[in-house]
Amino acid sequence: MSARIDEVGNVIGKYASQSGNGPYLMLGSHFDSVIDAGKYDGPLGVITAIDCVARLKEVNKRLPIGLEVVAFGDEEGTRFATALAGSSAITGSFGDAHFNAKDSHGISVEEALKHFGLDPSKVPHAAHSSTDVIGYVEVHIEQGPVLEAESKPVGVVTGIFGQTRAKVTFKGAPNHAGTVPMRLRHDPLLAACEFCLVVERVAKSHSDTVATVGQFLALPGAMNIIPGAVELSIDVRSALDGVRTSCFDEIVASGQSIARKRGVEFDAKKLIDLNACPCSPVLVEKISSAIQSLGERPLLMPSGAGHDGMAMSKLTDIGMIFVRCDRGISHSPEESVKIEDVSVAAEVMYKLICDYAPGEKSVP
Amino acid sequence: MSARIDEVGNVIGKYASQSGNGPYLMLGSHFDSVIDAGKYDGPLGVITAIDCVARLKEVNKRLPIGLEVVAFGDEEGTRFATALAGSSAITGSFGDAHFNAKDSHGISVEEALKHFGLDPSKVPHAAHSSTDVIGYVEVHIEQGPVLEAESKPVGVVTGIFGQTRAKVTFKGAPNHAGTVPMRLRHDPLLAACEFCLVVERVAKSHSDTVATVGQFLALPGAMNIIPGAVELSIDVRSALDGVRTSCFDEIVASGQSIARKRGVEFDAKKLIDLNACPCSPVLVEKISSAIQSLGERPLLMPSGAGHDGMAMSKLTDIGMIFVRCDRGISHSPEESVKIEDVSVAAEVMYKLICDYAPGEKSVP
Repeated sequence: MSARIDEVGNVIGKYASQSGNGPYLMLGSHFDSVIDAGKYDGPLGVITAIDCVARLKEVNKRLPIGLEVVAFGDEEGTRFATALAGSSAITGSFGDAHFNAKDSHGISVEEALKHFGLDPSKVPHAAHSSTDVIGYVEVHIEQGPVLEAESKPVGVVTGIFGQTRAKVTFKGAPNHAGTVPMRLRHDPLLAACEFCLVVERVAKSHSDTVATVGQFLALPGAMNIIPGAVELSIDVRSALDGVRTSCFDEIVASGQSIARKRGVEFDAKKLIDLNACPCSPVLVEKISSAIQSLGERPLLMPSGAGHDGMAMSKLTDIGMIFVRCDRGISHSPEESVKIEDVSVAAEVMYKLICDYAPGEKSVP
Repeated sequence: MSARIDEVGNVIGKYASQSGNGPYLMLGSHFDSVIDAGKYDGPLGVITAIDCVARLKEVNKRLPIGLEVVAFGDEEGTRFATALAGSSAITGSFGDAHFNAKDSHGISVEEALKHFGLDPSKVPHAAHSSTDVIGYVEVHIEQGPVLEAESKPVGVVTGIFGQTRAKVTFKGAPNHAGTVPMRLRHDPLLAACEFCLVVERVAKSHSDTVATVGQFLALPGAMNIIPGAVELSIDVRSALDGVRTSCFDEIVASGQSIARKRGVEFDAKKLIDLNACPCSPVLVEKISSAIQSLGERPLLMPSGAGHDGMAMSKLTDIGMIFVRCDRGISHSPEESVKIEDVSVAAEVMYKLICDYAPGEKSVP
């Protein structure tokens, strides 16, 4: 491959087509990580893509299509509050919000790019043209327990969940835990507990949908005081935007009715509302066929986590191959995959890239 | 009255009997407060007792029994972790735990007594002899909403709730809020929510019993992480020790079964286990009669909060008169009572003390 660092710090290797030019399929993942991370979230997809090219090179094979292996920078947004930064630059959507974001020492992305020896004014040149790109295919660890539960080495991602996040408050008045009889209480904590069980029930009543209460804080938080308020978070994700929206609305309506019944106040403030990002049906089909040719039944599944594909979908069609990971653990040094499962993913990607006809695009 | 500061800092005023000696009835409350307190929690009972004596003095009336008005120090335990300190000294149970308790600056109670000009070695002399004391009667604001809800100016306290406190933990493993389908989750927060609703249901199924979850913390507490653990507190109070114990056991058993069902761990650690402190039936009867003689129907009620009577019950029989307070608010500058309600309480106390026959004790 001819390798280069692009204008925003992504590392890109180009493996030319038989003709030496024409459109290319992009393969890869990110090579940044969270703090206290595992070894596979990101790098596994870069290595797998490089392995496919190495295999072609070993037998001096060139394909009808070009290949670009990309290792994206700053997918996680660990240093700056700028997730998907590298992939956004490739789609031409790296904007002021990215440039101006600052780390905990007050250093902006713009300054950090300079320190690294890059010229921020050239970042727009990192953008690829949609007519040059056939598609983007990524191998990534699942970061969840589904493949393990289903005894599958790999999975075919059908799309990345849309996501709605909100901050919810139930409010009453703090009171003495001894002196207020149960019948005279308006306890926001009990309202919040009922509410959390509704969040679970609503999510369970739809497929490819999850909802989580990750934060829950009772205030003032003393053993002998009936709480005056509870602050909690809800995070609703679904493969279908309509389902996500109606789940969220149903959850909010339940919160209002629980609050009314218990004589407390309810408020829900939406913080994030991102639509789902479907994978290309053609790439889903191609990945599934490749899995089938290995004698495995392809398991189609959504991705509940965000990936560079969300940014890349603005430029081109995306496809993803998930690799089973131990107990679904990710963002932890305990992150682990089996080498046999990685082999299957590499084989699937190799078959996929070899099957492209000259001039073929993922969407016909 | 002949007034003095006793060996531990209580202020005591003595109003001698007709004979000039013999046993005395103690009246009063505490005159320390919590931080950011109201004006009535404590001082109201001291002032009401002084008012009764002032009324006797005005007409130069002496009773067959002696009276001692006491303003206890350190009922709340605000500066040191030593609630009921003044009343404990009067019962002879002010021990090493009291002396050695330190404030946030590291100053011990022993040192604080010295700074105040008292001799810690003399504190045991603050103890009264049970043969000298007829009983202890206290006027106090209710600190709860019952009298207001029942439209009563005052209430007759039947006893002070016993109390069991415990720290409860539900534990799973933190997980990604997007990647774990609902059917594969073992969410300790949802287990904890079910549990809190059981706490409410169990308390509601018994009269004169309350149970509260005042602390509830989801860990690690991120919007996009299924909690790995929830730490919460339970506080169960009841007029009857058997009811309190069986409620607590039922709550713990439910916690275990909820945890089993949801595949998470459960633990409950008891922190406090205090038996109920009943008021003397004779004093309940005397207070009730005094209320009836004013044309009111006496309302008998338990006290869910702790009071000096808990300590004083080790020395003598106790009785309490509750005064209605605005919206049940206490431990707040908003604490408020109506002057008419205080008049009723003062009148009840005055009648009560005037009705004692020579040599009468509250327990015949």
